[in-house]
Amino acid sequence: MRAAIAGASGYAGGELLRLLLSHPEIEIGALTAGSNAGTALGAHQPHLAPLADRILLDTTADTLGGHDLVFLALPHGQSAAVAAQLGDDTLVVDCGADFRLTDPAAWEHFYGGVHAGAWPYGLPELPGLREGLRGTRRIAVPGCYPTAVTLALFPAFAAGLAEPDVVVVAATGTSGAGKSLKPNLLGSEVMGSVSAYGVGGVHRHTPEMEQNLSPLAGEPVKVSFTPMLAPMSRGILATCTAPAKPGVTAQVLREAYETAAKDEPFLRLLPQGQWPATSMTLGANTAALQVTLDERTGRVVAVIAIDNLTKGTAGGAIQSANLALGLPEELGLPLNGVAP
Amino acid sequence: MRAAIAGASGYAGGELLRLLLSHPEIEIGALTAGSNAGTALGAHQPHLAPLADRILLDTTADTLGGHDLVFLALPHGQSAAVAAQLGDDTLVVDCGADFRLTDPAAWEHFYGGVHAGAWPYGLPELPGLREGLRGTRRIAVPGCYPTAVTLALFPAFAAGLAEPDVVVVAATGTSGAGKSLKPNLLGSEVMGSVSAYGVGGVHRHTPEMEQNLSPLAGEPVKVSFTPMLAPMSRGILATCTAPAKPGVTAQVLREAYETAAKDEPFLRLLPQGQWPATSMTLGANTAALQVTLDERTGRVVAVIAIDNLTKGTAGGAIQSANLALGLPEELGLPLNGVAP
Amino acid sequence: MRAAIAGASGYAGGELLRLLLSHPEIEIGALTAGSNAGTALGAHQPHLAPLADRILLDTTADTLGGHDLVFLALPHGQSAAVAAQLGDDTLVVDCGADFRLTDPAAWEHFYGGVHAGAWPYGLPELPGLREGLRGTRRIAVPGCYPTAVTLALFPAFAAGLAEPDVVVVAATGTSGAGKSLKPNLLGSEVMGSVSAYGVGGVHRHTPEMEQNLSPLAGEPVKVSFTPMLAPMSRGILATCTAPAKPGVTAQVLREAYETAAKDEPFLRLLPQGQWPATSMTLGANTAALQVTLDERTGRVVAVIAIDNLTKGTAGGAIQSANLALGLPEELGLPLNGVAP
Amino acid sequence: MRAAIAGASGYAGGELLRLLLSHPEIEIGALTAGSNAGTALGAHQPHLAPLADRILLDTTADTLGGHDLVFLALPHGQSAAVAAQLGDDTLVVDCGADFRLTDPAAWEHFYGGVHAGAWPYGLPELPGLREGLRGTRRIAVPGCYPTAVTLALFPAFAAGLAEPDVVVVAATGTSGAGKSLKPNLLGSEVMGSVSAYGVGGVHRHTPEMEQNLSPLAGEPVKVSFTPMLAPMSRGILATCTAPAKPGVTAQVLREAYETAAKDEPFLRLLPQGQWPATSMTLGANTAALQVTLDERTGRVVAVIAIDNLTKGTAGGAIQSANLALGLPEELGLPLNGVAP
Repeated sequence: MRAAIAGASGYAGGELLRLLLSHPEIEIGALTAGSNAGTALGAHQPHLAPLADRILLDTTADTLGGHDLVFLALPHGQSAAVAAQLGDDTLVVDCGADFRLTDPAAWEHFYGGVHAGAWPYGLPELPGLREGLRGTRRIAVPGCYPTAVTLALFPAFAAGLAEPDVVVVAATGTSGAGKSLKPNLLGSEVMGSVSAYGVGGVHRHTPEMEQNLSPLAGEPVKVSFTPMLAPMSRGILATCTAPAKPGVTAQVLREAYETAAKDEPFLRLLPQGQWPATSMTLGANTAALQVTLDERTGRVVAVIAIDNLTKGTAGGAIQSANLALGLPEELGLPLNGVAP
Repeated sequence: MRAAIAGASGYAGGELLRLLLSHPEIEIGALTAGSNAGTALGAHQPHLAPLADRILLDTTADTLGGHDLVFLALPHGQSAAVAAQLGDDTLVVDCGADFRLTDPAAWEHFYGGVHAGAWPYGLPELPGLREGLRGTRRIAVPGCYPTAVTLALFPAFAAGLAEPDVVVVAATGTSGAGKSLKPNLLGSEVMGSVSAYGVGGVHRHTPEMEQNLSPLAGEPVKVSFTPMLAPMSRGILATCTAPAKPGVTAQVLREAYETAAKDEPFLRLLPQGQWPATSMTLGANTAALQVTLDERTGRVVAVIAIDNLTKGTAGGAIQSANLALGLPEELGLPLNGVAP
Repeated sequence: MRAAIAGASGYAGGELLRLLLSHPEIEIGALTAGSNAGTALGAHQPHLAPLADRILLDTTADTLGGHDLVFLALPHGQSAAVAAQLGDDTLVVDCGADFRLTDPAAWEHFYGGVHAGAWPYGLPELPGLREGLRGTRRIAVPGCYPTAVTLALFPAFAAGLAEPDVVVVAATGTSGAGKSLKPNLLGSEVMGSVSAYGVGGVHRHTPEMEQNLSPLAGEPVKVSFTPMLAPMSRGILATCTAPAKPGVTAQVLREAYETAAKDEPFLRLLPQGQWPATSMTLGANTAALQVTLDERTGRVVAVIAIDNLTKGTAGGAIQSANLALGLPEELGLPLNGVAP
Repeated sequence: MRAAIAGASGYAGGELLRLLLSHPEIEIGALTAGSNAGTALGAHQPHLAPLADRILLDTTADTLGGHDLVFLALPHGQSAAVAAQLGDDTLVVDCGADFRLTDPAAWEHFYGGVHAGAWPYGLPELPGLREGLRGTRRIAVPGCYPTAVTLALFPAFAAGLAEPDVVVVAATGTSGAGKSLKPNLLGSEVMGSVSAYGVGGVHRHTPEMEQNLSPLAGEPVKVSFTPMLAPMSRGILATCTAPAKPGVTAQVLREAYETAAKDEPFLRLLPQGQWPATSMTLGANTAALQVTLDERTGRVVAVIAIDNLTKGTAGGAIQSANLALGLPEELGLPLNGVAP
């Protein structure tokens, strides 16, 4: 099978290529870009030696056509137009936000403009979603923060252990902001400093978290979400808390998480007493998870680490694509972080 | 006036020395240490050129005696014995935890062992505390996290705008853990990685936050506190949230913070729309603060940045010592961060 | 084939395990340690999920025996005694220094104590060495710095283009110093700071560089080597210079490097104008190399990036082990860095 | 005395302001910028609380006029035109390259365009230069790398101990590249990675090093200079080597450096055995220096650490300005680094 990658010069595109280079069943086809079209990939992804001489093409129906699958790693809002030109039998995997939200009102409130619709949501671990991904030809890859937060909290909500009043604070590496040339993303600014941004319920990933958790809770889940930029290139560490339902014990909580993680290849519940670090998951498709009950405040506290570019974007995309293509879900996806 | 520093080879001791070297009214006297006694300071604090040849003495009543003030930067549990041997007319400033908590039960729960008592608490910004610090001869310097969290939330509680159900997630630089030789503090482990620790209501700074905020709230404040270790040497960024009281508006909230910060030299409320970064405060005694009302979830969200070693320890210690000594509160304390 | 790893709780051991987990022909057998024996691997290598529950054994002939190959990742000086107890038909791959140097006088000068001898040197790229590694049962894995410096300069010396008066300055990530609990390796010390160490011709890797290059030069090569510690976990960037022989042109130099790199799977000569960054090689067995002629000073300047733990240690070890075992040299070894 | 700063929104401008805020004799006057004119300084220098509301003016003769001194922190090539409009009695301190080189041919080769001339060179430590700075009304502030390299090697050349065949490799923090929005300066690219640039004798600071050292050597000094970008915001660590003259001993070398450093307030020769780290000098105007004789290769190896923005730019500028204004040379300049 041959895959085209649209947006190959960006960070999501680069990670897709790094993973696909080790994928035994997917061959790398056309690589396209926006303003970088016409240049060699090696100028943008110097870590990908085997593809260094590939010339980036324009992102068009023409260049993307004729592939078995197409990964879209485009700025938000550009995927719908491109996808419309690709045949229904082509697997289209959108790493952008365009097709994630089911609620047009949420889309308009957080993104503005017209809602493009919703595609099967590429988070196989979320109860009920895996089967729908098998054989699909359209996949909306979850946002990086929603991936982390949903994986951290779905066991509690699925087991009816948490109240729907969620508070999340998460630190991300700078690659989560992409390659945009903004002063606050310069190395001089980010090294040695943690900063807050998107505070106060305005981050666009917020409704996606609520959309994932509310059906499990059986009531609307509200998430107070605060992201932080940390001085590292990759990784998300999310602290996710919610009041425990009355009567929930630490043991019941632990068992719910053990049950949820048991058969999930990429959801790793750490032994009690060990807490996640993003280095555990660097470059890997694994989420490292721990949970506890804060008896003093009665809150469930789940902490999760993922690599925002791997499980949080490109790895998650390939995991769902594997399902869509009838391949083993784990094929070609690294389990182990690169550490130290 | 001459100051002795006990624990001069550690990070808190080093920061005290760096600041005192620029203090116009305090001269540096004896420097003492534990296992490093007998070695030159330059081996432990190579950034302090003028003191490089000073030999570290043992920490005894003898070496610390005969000074106008003594800063204790000792491991928890060691301050009481040392302080008992210093005269009542010597100003003793304890950077450790020994005399911070007023409630013996909280001490025993979080620290274990016998409660040594409580000294005047060195956070002049907390309503009601500044006057009690003038002329005192004993000061308990607040913990670094409680400094950040208290400064971030006291305006809301003092104005009656927040419910007492607080959730705090804070990232700290590694110097907050001191110079202890633990594998998880090695550069190889911390660089490129954010990790969680002390999760689930077990961090020792938790009761101190509650002790500071409860009197302002007029009811017991409960804090769910989760700390994270971030890949930087210095700095704390704390996201502090609590449900807003019914009817609180964004404008009322802003005004409460503007009132609280107006006359505080080290509490800097940022212009609306600008969010704190720890680099703003690196090496400075300033706290950079922002607040908003998340209308969707009804939560007050305050974010604050401090340097854990400066405002969070040594700078805060000198600020309170200035008050105790009848000096201008701001004397010798840098206002501006070293950035980028 | 089954491999035992002695020293599995250290950084070199961890990287061996990370790579072997993806190696299709080598199965992971016994894991041993020194003072960490008896504990679970997950406490020391939390990024290696599939091995988290493995208990570390003592490093003895007994625990290491019965494997097809044994990787030794032990402190210098410990390999000889262990190796002596392993049968001649067991492939023993020593990641330590014990068997690298051929000259007893150099050993005694730089390491002290008795010289254990020399084993086939595991740098297949060095002209003349690859064949000797096929079928061998003893391999001395090169030091990380000598790997970088030798790969950077052998093309120039093999082609007779450089004078034997070499100056090398190289920056390394902190994992090069291992997991030793030293104050100068704490995250607080290394982040935000570059420092020098081992200056003035005293670093133990110096004679190994000279040993590698002198035979190619046909005369004794002298290396002035200065290492630096950089604020990153992994990676070596080495700037290697030597006076060009009279008459050498930029084109002749380029061609010599192109020839040398042409058939080497792990030696990547970058396109002219692109310079190495360690991120290109993070977690990969690739060396990224560039060379130029400084016409003003008449010096050859070669710059190379490797991952000190991969190509510089564990990856290089597996590459040579593949040859020894009759497997394809590149088997199981990643080509592409994890970036950004 | 009042100072205007042209280029106040950049890194050099920000560091000038940070230092001037603590300078007892220089008041901060007009702040000007290029494309940032019209915006508040707080948006660009959020660490400088007292100046946050200052509006940046256009850089014109008008806005800069009427000050006792003017600091120019402008892109190369813009200083001459601005300076020409400022009166001869105004002290003009140029942090750019325009007036550093005395040799028009060197200017044209490395910078291109017309040579603007040369001003008194602001490196008071360089033998013979201090007196010429007293009372001057024009100062060319040295480049950051030439500051480091010259301070590291002038003692050897002034004492006739080194051959003029210099090899320098230096690592710099990213602020050395300024605030330019280039992909390779993004945090995601620089964190966790050391990279080379400007290799092969093409870096523009090279002729400045040669210009400084040649007169002391009494013959033309040639410098092979290779810079590296390190994952930190500030700091330069330069390894500077040259062959020792015949007969030079370690003791003679040490004594020459001790003599050179003895009366220099900002040149700190470390005790033997201690090597520089950039953290020793972070935010300080101090250079930390060490030297040794590599007996094996016969080379002098000097290693130096400075903060590129402080001693390497803004601090050096103020140090020379102090001399020009008849103030104590050290006035307002921090001696001690901010560490850890």
